[in-house]
Amino acid sequence: MKVLVSEVGPRDGLQSIKRAMPTEAKHRWIRALAAAGLREIEVASFVPAKLLPQMADAAEVVREAVKVPGITVLALAPNLRGVQDAVAAGAHKVTLPVSASEAHSRANIRMSCEEAIAQVGRICAFRDGLPEGQRPGVEVGIATAFGCTLQGEVPEEWVFEMARRLVAAGADSVGLSDTVGYANPAQVKRMFARLAREIGDRAGGAHLHNTRGQGLANVVAALEAGVTTFDASQGGIGGCPYAPGASGNVVTEDLVFLLESMGCDTGIDVERLVAAREVFKEAMPGEPIYGHVPDAGLPKTFRRAAEGAAS
Amino acid sequence: MKVLVSEVGPRDGLQSIKRAMPTEAKHRWIRALAAAGLREIEVASFVPAKLLPQMADAAEVVREAVKVPGITVLALAPNLRGVQDAVAAGAHKVTLPVSASEAHSRANIRMSCEEAIAQVGRICAFRDGLPEGQRPGVEVGIATAFGCTLQGEVPEEWVFEMARRLVAAGADSVGLSDTVGYANPAQVKRMFARLAREIGDRAGGAHLHNTRGQGLANVVAALEAGVTTFDASQGGIGGCPYAPGASGNVVTEDLVFLLESMGCDTGIDVERLVAAREVFKEAMPGEPIYGHVPDAGLPKTFRRAAEGAAS
Repeated sequence: MKVLVSEVGPRDGLQSIKRAMPTEAKHRWIRALAAAGLREIEVASFVPAKLLPQMADAAEVVREAVKVPGITVLALAPNLRGVQDAVAAGAHKVTLPVSASEAHSRANIRMSCEEAIAQVGRICAFRDGLPEGQRPGVEVGIATAFGCTLQGEVPEEWVFEMARRLVAAGADSVGLSDTVGYANPAQVKRMFARLAREIGDRAGGAHLHNTRGQGLANVVAALEAGVTTFDASQGGIGGCPYAPGASGNVVTEDLVFLLESMGCDTGIDVERLVAAREVFKEAMPGEPIYGHVPDAGLPKTFRRAAEGAAS
Repeated sequence: MKVLVSEVGPRDGLQSIKRAMPTEAKHRWIRALAAAGLREIEVASFVPAKLLPQMADAAEVVREAVKVPGITVLALAPNLRGVQDAVAAGAHKVTLPVSASEAHSRANIRMSCEEAIAQVGRICAFRDGLPEGQRPGVEVGIATAFGCTLQGEVPEEWVFEMARRLVAAGADSVGLSDTVGYANPAQVKRMFARLAREIGDRAGGAHLHNTRGQGLANVVAALEAGVTTFDASQGGIGGCPYAPGASGNVVTEDLVFLLESMGCDTGIDVERLVAAREVFKEAMPGEPIYGHVPDAGLPKTFRRAAEGAAS
């Protein structure tokens, strides 16, 4: 089985770190990730530089990333203006922040859930008006789909109503995000199975966090539900790290090892992926970076899925 | 569904730490773990004190632990002499080290696999000769069942032949251990499903490691295969930590959170379990201790399985 690992480190990861990575290092890091076999990379966020100075070079990073052969370049954009800038820079896909928790939606993008859905509609209308060949893919991951630190429970019925309405608004794919690390495997399996029933081939990937150490456990559950796209970040940077040592995003290195050992073909070479950490470490000395596989190394028995994994 | 979490920290954990925990602290730690709701604790190893000075107080620790109401007290014993000492101290169950890898078996207990199986037979014969009421349960976890750092691949056919022969030799339960952190979820699910087909109700629990961050992912796979007993150690101490930061055993705190959130009733209170870490930390200052849940805390949405988990 083929599985797509979508790397979010250069966007989700770097935006959580106060210090900015130099633009030239971003270019090198993205190229190193691509060289390891990653086929989709979220490289930047088109938000005002005064809000996120780490992303001030978003257009330049996208323009350089789209020169790398064989990768799909994603950019986050919180509004139409951001989408326009991302498209002008050449992003292949845009990802739009939408939250199922009313409280989180207001805190994160200063919009109600209804307003965020309406905005997705306007952005898709803009996309549809572009000449063919310039239309970006539009991805939405529903944030706080498994619960929210601000409002607590998030009703499942509402999550799926949102998913249906986002598809109706024109989103190409709608995934589910465990923004705060609340999800458990039973919930993940149930909700992704239902997502596929509700919106068919528009069902998007899983964005899971490791805040409580449950990231890969939830990945196994999502695989059982048929999910084939997973977000992750190199070294687990970014996400919502609530506590020292508690990484946020699922660690790409550990995720790829999991998938490949199970016989899922990601196209990624774990050793070259681990090597790409060096670019991050050099550019961001002293910054915490997580992951077990980089420390422990590959088992003697490891074979890549494409070579016929032991599984 | 009820799931048994078997705590191995006081044995497997402490034996991997050079410094010995004072006997009195061991007593307090075991009582704190029991107070959190753990119902089975492996408390000591009956090996010569010159080999493992940390376990020199094994008999005293067992004698004290069996006074704690409601817990099953396990002790590891590498040979008949150790089993006799464990029984004399009052251990309810003994666990015998057996390895499916010939190389690991010789390195660990200086016996071939054949000799180890024969020894299990002699130990079970000794047990059968004891007066009723004094016969300990005999548990075996087949070490390196998923691969070995010394010999690499471990043939699955041999693992199951061993399991059948250990049952024939008299073992009450035979589980599978990922001693070196090589297992992946596909393999775990397949092998535990087969273990149940091969030896029925003698199929034992899963002893999984987190060396490569895959511990809880493998737990989810084992649950899918019907496993209902899991070893873990408080703070992830012990196991085979190959590298700094790479914990060995599955962290009990994170495992219990996983199970309870999924609606599996462990009988354990996560907050009291986290509180038990203080006993360890006080007695072993500066010693590394792992786990995400202790840092991140419980989600707002968390409910114990016995109270009707959200799952």
